[in-house]
Amino acid sequence: MLGRIVIDDVHPRTPTRRFPAKAAVGEVVPVSADIFKDGHDVLAARVRVGDETWPLTPVGNDRWEAAIALGVVGAHDLIIEAWVDRFATWRHDVQAKAGAGQDLTTELEEGTLLFERLLPHVPELRRPLVEEAAAALARDSCTVDVRLNAGLDDAVAAALAGVPLPEDVTVSDPHPLWVDRERASFSAWYEVFPRSEGGFGGVAKRLADIADMGFDVVYLPPIHPIGRTFRKGRNNTLDPAPDDVGSPWAIGGPEGGHAAIHPELGSLEDFRVLVDEAKAHGMEVALDYALQCSPDHPWVTEHPEWFHHRPDGTIKYAENPPKKYQDIYPINFWPPKEKDRKALWDACKAILDHWIGHGVRIFRVDNPHTKPTAFWAWMIREVQAAHPDVLFLAEAFTRPKVMAKLAEVGFTQSYTYFTWRNTKQELIDYGLEVTSAPTAEYMRPNFWPNTPDILAGPLRNGPPAAFRMRAVLAATLVPSWGVYSGFELCENEPASDTNEEYLHSEKYEVKERDWTRPDSLVPFLTRLNEIRRAHPALQRLRGLQFHHSNTDQLLAYSRTSADGSDVVLCVVNLDPHQWHEDTLWLDLAALGLPPTVDALDELSGQAFAWDATPYVRLDPAEAPAHILHLRAR
Amino acid sequence: MLGRIVIDDVHPRTPTRRFPAKAAVGEVVPVSADIFKDGHDVLAARVRVGDETWPLTPVGNDRWEAAIALGVVGAHDLIIEAWVDRFATWRHDVQAKAGAGQDLTTELEEGTLLFERLLPHVPELRRPLVEEAAAALARDSCTVDVRLNAGLDDAVAAALAGVPLPEDVTVSDPHPLWVDRERASFSAWYEVFPRSEGGFGGVAKRLADIADMGFDVVYLPPIHPIGRTFRKGRNNTLDPAPDDVGSPWAIGGPEGGHAAIHPELGSLEDFRVLVDEAKAHGMEVALDYALQCSPDHPWVTEHPEWFHHRPDGTIKYAENPPKKYQDIYPINFWPPKEKDRKALWDACKAILDHWIGHGVRIFRVDNPHTKPTAFWAWMIREVQAAHPDVLFLAEAFTRPKVMAKLAEVGFTQSYTYFTWRNTKQELIDYGLEVTSAPTAEYMRPNFWPNTPDILAGPLRNGPPAAFRMRAVLAATLVPSWGVYSGFELCENEPASDTNEEYLHSEKYEVKERDWTRPDSLVPFLTRLNEIRRAHPALQRLRGLQFHHSNTDQLLAYSRTSADGSDVVLCVVNLDPHQWHEDTLWLDLAALGLPPTVDALDELSGQAFAWDATPYVRLDPAEAPAHILHLRAR
Repeated sequence: MLGRIVIDDVHPRTPTRRFPAKAAVGEVVPVSADIFKDGHDVLAARVRVGDETWPLTPVGNDRWEAAIALGVVGAHDLIIEAWVDRFATWRHDVQAKAGAGQDLTTELEEGTLLFERLLPHVPELRRPLVEEAAAALARDSCTVDVRLNAGLDDAVAAALAGVPLPEDVTVSDPHPLWVDRERASFSAWYEVFPRSEGGFGGVAKRLADIADMGFDVVYLPPIHPIGRTFRKGRNNTLDPAPDDVGSPWAIGGPEGGHAAIHPELGSLEDFRVLVDEAKAHGMEVALDYALQCSPDHPWVTEHPEWFHHRPDGTIKYAENPPKKYQDIYPINFWPPKEKDRKALWDACKAILDHWIGHGVRIFRVDNPHTKPTAFWAWMIREVQAAHPDVLFLAEAFTRPKVMAKLAEVGFTQSYTYFTWRNTKQELIDYGLEVTSAPTAEYMRPNFWPNTPDILAGPLRNGPPAAFRMRAVLAATLVPSWGVYSGFELCENEPASDTNEEYLHSEKYEVKERDWTRPDSLVPFLTRLNEIRRAHPALQRLRGLQFHHSNTDQLLAYSRTSADGSDVVLCVVNLDPHQWHEDTLWLDLAALGLPPTVDALDELSGQAFAWDATPYVRLDPAEAPAHILHLRAR
Repeated sequence: MLGRIVIDDVHPRTPTRRFPAKAAVGEVVPVSADIFKDGHDVLAARVRVGDETWPLTPVGNDRWEAAIALGVVGAHDLIIEAWVDRFATWRHDVQAKAGAGQDLTTELEEGTLLFERLLPHVPELRRPLVEEAAAALARDSCTVDVRLNAGLDDAVAAALAGVPLPEDVTVSDPHPLWVDRERASFSAWYEVFPRSEGGFGGVAKRLADIADMGFDVVYLPPIHPIGRTFRKGRNNTLDPAPDDVGSPWAIGGPEGGHAAIHPELGSLEDFRVLVDEAKAHGMEVALDYALQCSPDHPWVTEHPEWFHHRPDGTIKYAENPPKKYQDIYPINFWPPKEKDRKALWDACKAILDHWIGHGVRIFRVDNPHTKPTAFWAWMIREVQAAHPDVLFLAEAFTRPKVMAKLAEVGFTQSYTYFTWRNTKQELIDYGLEVTSAPTAEYMRPNFWPNTPDILAGPLRNGPPAAFRMRAVLAATLVPSWGVYSGFELCENEPASDTNEEYLHSEKYEVKERDWTRPDSLVPFLTRLNEIRRAHPALQRLRGLQFHHSNTDQLLAYSRTSADGSDVVLCVVNLDPHQWHEDTLWLDLAALGLPPTVDALDELSGQAFAWDATPYVRLDPAEAPAHILHLRAR
C-alpha cells in the first residue's frame, strides 16, 4: 500500500532508478522530491542517509529540496521521510481563526493535547520550553491572547521544528547513492606511452614534470606483452617491419597476458616503484583495461571456449565488415556454457584484482561499449564492493544511449563527445547537458581535447592557439579533463584528410619528443591546472551557466562553487585564427554578485572593473581566453 | 543480472512506473523503448501482450517503436522481447564483405550452419524456402555467386524475419497496461440535477433530448438523502429557510446514507428504470461518489470512529481555516486502529458495489484530492478487478502534481484546468501537455466549459458566442468533454465579481429552466457531438497539432486519426466580441496532405479549396469557428 504521504520523483537518480546515482566525498548534491498529501496539513520532510538527516524545504509546486554532502566512500541509501507537521498545522489554523476573530477555545485545548503528544519526541534540551507553552495553554486563568502568544511563540515553534510523531512518518523507498573519493569528481589526466619514455623508469623520471604541470592521474596505455601474430606496422599497416613495436592494445604474447608486463617496459618491481613515486608526487597511475586478446595471448590456447569460433574451428578475429582486425580476438562474453561464462568473467575480474593488489586504483576501460553492459554492471559492483576507492573511466566513444547506460551501470567517469563539440551552440548545449540533472546525477564527463585515436576539429593542422583554446574549454567547462602527451607540443598532423587519427600514430611506433621545447604549452597547461586547484568553482560538476555574447566566436560562461562564494567567468575566443570583440551581457544577479565586480584575469594577471556589459577583445595570438575571478566590488 | 540486450525507457508508462499505463479497447497506442547491445549485431524486437505480438521498428538513436491496439478490457502486461537477428547480421556481413571483394568461403559455411540452427524455429510453411537456401549454400558445386544470391534472397529474409533463437531473446520486465472500454477514452457528458427535473422520472423524460444532443453520459450529482443539521441555504448562506433543499453533497439523513436515495427523487426502482432507459438511448447514468457525511448521516452515530474528533468528543466538521463547512463531516481515512481503517475502506467500497449492483458503471468522484491517494489506489484496483468496465472521473481540481498522481493511481478520466485556460498560448501549452506523452499515457482529460461550481473566464456575464467558442474548444481539443446543464441556455451570472460560482447556484436550490427557448445552444451542441461522432480524428487523445496564426485571437489546430486517414482542422476565434481575420500557415505535409486540400466546414456546410496559407475571417456573431474536414484535392 502507498504511504499516507506521496513521495515521488526523488533525485538524484539514474534513468532506470535501478543503479546508484553518484556523488563524491564532500560534494554538495542537490536532493529533491515531490512530497504532498490530501488535505491542507502542513508537511515537513527530511533526507536521511544512515543516521544523518538534512531538512527538505518546499520550493513550490509540491517540490522539496535539500543540499547534502556525504563524507564516507561507498554505497549509501538516500531515504526521504515526510510527515504532517502537527504543530505547524495547528499553528496555521489557530492563526487563521484568530485573524478572523473566531472562538479559539477548542483549538487551544487541542493545542495542549498536541503538546503532550509531541513532548516525548522533543529533544530533552528543548522540552522545558514546550512544557511551559503547554502549561500556559492549559491554564484557565490565562487569557486567550496570552495563551495564543504562548502557543505561537517562535521559540516553541523552533523547539518543535522537525519533531514528527513516529506514526505520522511516511518513509520513501531507499534510493541508492554511490559516493566516490574526491578524485572521481575532480581530476586532471595525463596519458603517456611508457615505451616512448624508455619504460617505467623513464616515466618515473618524468613524474616531477607531469606533477609540476598540475596533473594528478598518469594514465598508461596497456603495459602488457604485445602479440606478434598479425602485428600492425607503423601507421596501422598490415606488413610490419621486424622491429615494429605493434599496438599495445593487441594484448598478450608468450610472455603472458593481462597480468603480465611487457618485458621492455620493466619489471613488476619497476612498476610498483612507478606507482609509489607517482603517489609521492600526489598523483596516481591509471592502467588501461582492454578486454581483448592478441592471437598469442595465453587465454587463446588455455581457454578457447572464451572466444568466438568459425566453422573450421579457428577463432574469429575482430571485424566490423568489411574492416578486419586480425591482430585482435574479441572475447565471447556469453560462451554457450554457463560455467564457462562464470569462469571467464571471474578471470576478467582477476586481472583487476591483480593490479589492485599492486597499488592501482584507477582503470581506464578500453571500448566498454563492445562488451556486455551486464558484464560491467556486475564487474564494477563486485570490484567496488571490495575496493570502494577504485575508479573506472569509460572510453565510451559510442552512441549516446550506450554512453549513458555505461555511466548508469557504474562507470565513474566517461569520455564524452567534447572532442567533436566546437561551435558555440554545440558547446552550450553539450556543456549544459553534462553538468545538469538528469545526466550529472549519474555520469561524470572527462573532457579530452585529444587522445591517441582522435585528432579532431581545430587541432587538425591547427595553430598553438587552437590547442590553448581547446585546453581552456576542457579544463574549465567541467571538473575533469585530460590530455594525451604531445598535446603540449601542439602535435597536429592528421593521418589523412578523412582519418581522425594522428600521422605516425604512437599506437604503432615509439615517439621521441623534446619536452624542453621553448614553444611548448607546458607553462600554459601548468597555469590552467593551478587555476583549477585555486578555485572551488572549477572543481564541481554543477554550477555551469552560459552568458550572452553577440558573436558566435566568443563563448562566455561562469562556474560557481556550491556555496556561491567563488565565481569564475570564462570568455573564450573559439576562433584560433582571428581576434574577436564584443560587448557581453552577464547575468551577475544570478551569480549572486552586485552590478559592478572586480574581475581578475587568472591567465594574464590583468584586473578589470566590470559591470554586466563589459567590452572584451580576445586575440588568439595573445590569449585564447579570459579566466576571470569575479568578486563584488 | 541484466539481459544481453538493454531494454530501457519503455513507454507507455506512468511517472513512477508502479501503476498501469492506460489504453482503451481498439485505441492505437504508441509503444517505444531504447533497445541496444554491445557490438555491431543487427537487432530485432517485438512487443508482446499475452500471445499477441507486434514488431518494433528502429527509428534512430537506439529508439524502437510500434503501434499496438488491444481488444480486451482489463489488466495486461506489455513485454518487450529483443534478440540478435542472426540472419540479418550474417547477411549484412556477407554483403559488406562481398562488396569489398573479400573471400566468402567461411561466411557461406557459417550461413549453412546458421540456417540449420534457425530452421526448427521457422514456421512450417516457410521452412522449405530456408531449407532450399541452406542446401544451395552447402552445395560444393554451387558458385559463390549463386550461393550468395540464395543466401541473400529476399524471400528467405522474409521467411526468417522475426525468427529468434530462444536462447537469444532478452525479455523485459512486464509493463502494466490497463485497457478500459471505449467510453473511457471517448465520451460526452451531460450533468443534470435530478431534483430540478422533478426527480428520476423527470430526468427519464429528458433522456431523449439529451441523447439527441449527442451526449452519452448523464451524470447526476449525489442522489442521496441530504442532511438538515447546518443545511446550507440559497447562495451558500448559513440560515436556510424551512423549505430550502440543501446541497446534495451534504450526504446522509435519517433516511440513510450513500446507499440510500433522496425520497423526493424517486424509489430505487425509479432509479433502475432511469438507468435502463438511459441504456436504451445509448447512454449511461454516472453517479457522484462524494465521501463525506452530513451530521445526520447514519455513519456518524454508527461509526464515530470513522471521523475526526475534538477534545470534547464531538466530531470535527470540515474546515479550511478560517473557512468552515459545518454541514459536512470529513471522513478520517486513517483511524488509529487498523481494523477500523479496514472496516471504513470496505464500507466505502461497499457503496460502489451497491450502485454497481444497480447497473451503474461510471462514477464521478467528488474532491478525490481531499482523500488519501493510497485509498484511491486500493479502491480503484479492487473495484476494477471485479468490474473492469467501471470508470472513474476524478474531480481533481487541485495542484498539478496531485491531479497527475490521482490519474496515475487509477482514475479513468480527470477534470482539468481547461476552464482556466483561455489565451492562445495557454490553450496550446495545455492542449499539447494533456494529449502527448508522458501525460497522455496515464491521464485522460475531460474538458468541461462549466460545472455547478465553476463559471469562469469569458463565460462570466459572457455572450452566447463565448459559450459556443468554449464548447468548440472543449469538444474538439480532446475526445472527452462535458457540460453542466444550463450551459445550453448560456447561463452566465456569477455569484459575485470575486466568486467563481453561479449566482443562485443550483447546488442550493431547485432550478426551473425552459429547455425549449428558441435561442438555446441545443442545435449547436447537437451538431458538435455529431461532428465528433463522424470523425475518428476527434475520438482519440493523441494526434493534436497546432498550426501557425499571426493573431493571438485565432487558434488553429488539427486532429488526426491514428491511421492518418481522417484530418479535422479547427480554427477558433478566441474573442467572442469581435471578428478577426488572418492568413494561416498550415503544416499540411505533417498531416500527410498535399499542398492543396478540400476543406469542408462541418459547422457551416461551406466548402473551401485551401492551400497551406488560407485566409480566414471569423465573426463570433455568425460562427465561433471553422471545423474543417480536410481531404486531398
